[in-house]
Amino acid sequence: MIFDRVIHNGTIITVNPDFDIIEKGAVCIKDGRIERIEASDGNLPLPEAEDVIDVKGGIIMPGLVNTHTHLPMTLFRGLADDLPLSVWLNEHIFPAERRHINPESVELGALLACSEMLLSGTTTCCDGYFFEDHVAAALNKSGMRAVLGQGVIDFPAPGVPDPSENIKNAVAFTKKWQGISPLITPSIFCHSPYTCSIETLKKAKAAAAENGLLFQIHVAETKAERDQIQSEHGATPVQYLDRIGVLDGNTLLVHGIWLDHDDIRIIARRRAKVSHNPESNMKLSAGISPVADLLKNGVTVGLGTDGCASNNDLDLFQEMDMAAKLHKVDALDPTVMDARTVLKMATIKGAEAIGLDRDIGSLEIGKSADLIVIDTAQPHLVPMYNPVSHIVYAVRGSDVRDVIVSGRALVKDGNLTTIDLEEILERVTEISRIIKKNKGTLR
Amino acid sequence: MIFDRVIHNGTIITVNPDFDIIEKGAVCIKDGRIERIEASDGNLPLPEAEDVIDVKGGIIMPGLVNTHTHLPMTLFRGLADDLPLSVWLNEHIFPAERRHINPESVELGALLACSEMLLSGTTTCCDGYFFEDHVAAALNKSGMRAVLGQGVIDFPAPGVPDPSENIKNAVAFTKKWQGISPLITPSIFCHSPYTCSIETLKKAKAAAAENGLLFQIHVAETKAERDQIQSEHGATPVQYLDRIGVLDGNTLLVHGIWLDHDDIRIIARRRAKVSHNPESNMKLSAGISPVADLLKNGVTVGLGTDGCASNNDLDLFQEMDMAAKLHKVDALDPTVMDARTVLKMATIKGAEAIGLDRDIGSLEIGKSADLIVIDTAQPHLVPMYNPVSHIVYAVRGSDVRDVIVSGRALVKDGNLTTIDLEEILERVTEISRIIKKNKGTLR
Repeated sequence: MIFDRVIHNGTIITVNPDFDIIEKGAVCIKDGRIERIEASDGNLPLPEAEDVIDVKGGIIMPGLVNTHTHLPMTLFRGLADDLPLSVWLNEHIFPAERRHINPESVELGALLACSEMLLSGTTTCCDGYFFEDHVAAALNKSGMRAVLGQGVIDFPAPGVPDPSENIKNAVAFTKKWQGISPLITPSIFCHSPYTCSIETLKKAKAAAAENGLLFQIHVAETKAERDQIQSEHGATPVQYLDRIGVLDGNTLLVHGIWLDHDDIRIIARRRAKVSHNPESNMKLSAGISPVADLLKNGVTVGLGTDGCASNNDLDLFQEMDMAAKLHKVDALDPTVMDARTVLKMATIKGAEAIGLDRDIGSLEIGKSADLIVIDTAQPHLVPMYNPVSHIVYAVRGSDVRDVIVSGRALVKDGNLTTIDLEEILERVTEISRIIKKNKGTLR
Repeated sequence: MIFDRVIHNGTIITVNPDFDIIEKGAVCIKDGRIERIEASDGNLPLPEAEDVIDVKGGIIMPGLVNTHTHLPMTLFRGLADDLPLSVWLNEHIFPAERRHINPESVELGALLACSEMLLSGTTTCCDGYFFEDHVAAALNKSGMRAVLGQGVIDFPAPGVPDPSENIKNAVAFTKKWQGISPLITPSIFCHSPYTCSIETLKKAKAAAAENGLLFQIHVAETKAERDQIQSEHGATPVQYLDRIGVLDGNTLLVHGIWLDHDDIRIIARRRAKVSHNPESNMKLSAGISPVADLLKNGVTVGLGTDGCASNNDLDLFQEMDMAAKLHKVDALDPTVMDARTVLKMATIKGAEAIGLDRDIGSLEIGKSADLIVIDTAQPHLVPMYNPVSHIVYAVRGSDVRDVIVSGRALVKDGNLTTIDLEEILERVTEISRIIKKNKGTLR
């Protein structure tokens, strides 16, 4: 067989169920799938292939999975920081969205996000925003894999001035994007239990369930939210969502910070998934999600960056480092969230959280060829005793050299192949001048 | 006047007392010093200079100051992680040091550290280790600025088999390195109040004081340490050090995690300085230093990475991000540790902490030309509304393009000028093979 592409001469971190690591190996790709994974010490002849990538002793690993993003918010990166949550949201982010979020800016911001994600080794993201049709268009151009949901909220929102149309809109998005590309999986994204009514939540979940789609929702992000739901519904946010029937294996609970022990047991019993976003949670001072307890109870937890207005980047390598360290110091126990656990959260568990684990999240024969190459010949990655430790504690997004999605090279030797980066940066800079000029007049 | 070097066409973050930011400016260097800082919109002719660096809209800022390192421990990066502190230290790090730390490996590990620090924008470090003479040799080769202390501990240590010689050794180091290079400032480094006797601490501090040198010491890093000192001396570690007279404006307290309110007041009153090492403290689960309280009480706090065995890198950009986010979530208050405060900790406050603030830490006329250039034309740094927010929350070490120390270019367009990186990586990889082979037999 002549393979489409062979990637060789590197340490392969499979993240398969046995967490096999092949010290010197090759991954062979045919028709977008992983056809063969083998040890190759350089003495045996390489399998024949159209394209051969010699990673020169680097790391070959699954592409990272970002389980929670609001991609177009790259446009607001660093627009407002270090402010109380309500000031940040009500006086800066919401007004900026009202004025500057439109189909064109959404697509542009999403293309910027794709550039950043691809260059830092993320091959799949799970997004929720407005004008999601244009997010999908950007993803489709980029060649990345994504689960995308049009935002549902009971207020007038960009593109949905009449909130009574919110579910209709979200469903229309899923219909449109079902079947357009095998890389784009539509989903439904409800903003939260405090911004959506019972009716809205139930209808949105029913629409998702009818088509077997992922239902995403922000839950228990702040203490204020928990207190509000408790006072309005006599239940914690998770108890409330469970009571109205929206928790099941296709539900992704984003943040999940203010959870009590019962909440964790409910999530586990319903097989709902959790997206953990430590950097955003830290920066907004939302709190620390009880991730170690969730994992102990068998809950699937993936990692996410959240939007760029609260992070302020989309680099999952840094998110892994932060997650490991945050939970260690929170528990005062360095054995908590070891490197292997964290790497799984950013790959196979993330894939599980968004319903794509049969196809991605690990390097296994038959799975889609979604993988990345890390250049380890750099001062901050030498020596290398343990590649998994390096991935979590020392690799930066900028160490990614090659990115393959479904067999296609989207980053070659550090350069994007599907996006004209210079043009995107120029156009974003232009829009940002207007956003900056309007900053003072937005409130 | 013909300048030696002019760096222009960028946003200048001065970190001067008024925290001036010049949106389009130039820094002019003569004889290793900053001679002029001016707005330059590109229309006026540039001052004449031997060398001109066009930063193309990037950021020009002071070089970062790493207030706590053990540079040769780069050799043990990722050797052991996710372990209880005592197992990590006693079964991995100490045995590896006993077997593999020698003059040659120390110099090599320090050169690797210099490579990593320079390439990620650090121009000054404050180090304490064994065979410090060889750390100094490495620093001297690299052209970086450093405050260096030979380690004092009341146990047999690498290079000091007889602990009764520890102070003599440390003092000999300071004598040798006083005056060799204006970039190397000797210091004395006592390991901690629990590994040095009262006698040792007093003598070491006296030796430092006699020559006006910085006295570095790990203090209150773990709860176990605090409890031990409390039970042995009937005082907190800080009270104890104060009682024996080692706290003053030339004392750098490293970590300072388990501090109570009285400790903070004592530190403030004595004008002692603190080195905050959030990533190491998190990874080892040591705890969270009360930095916001220290700052409120007027204590000078600098940032440090600690050694590579507990971080696992020397990237101060990531350390800034981590520091800001950690303290926000710890306080559940996003206004805590705003970007400006954190940037000052990594520059002017770090310089103050190690006694070099008259010469470095900010871009001011007459100060030494220690500065760095950030390339902002990258997807994770666009748009840029606020360069200070970017520096703390989005810039990575790999975004540093040029590094100047005392007027000399040590990194040019991302490449080291004083260190043969390829050779260093090769030699470290060779040594690491032996360390790895011995890993199992060290205990």
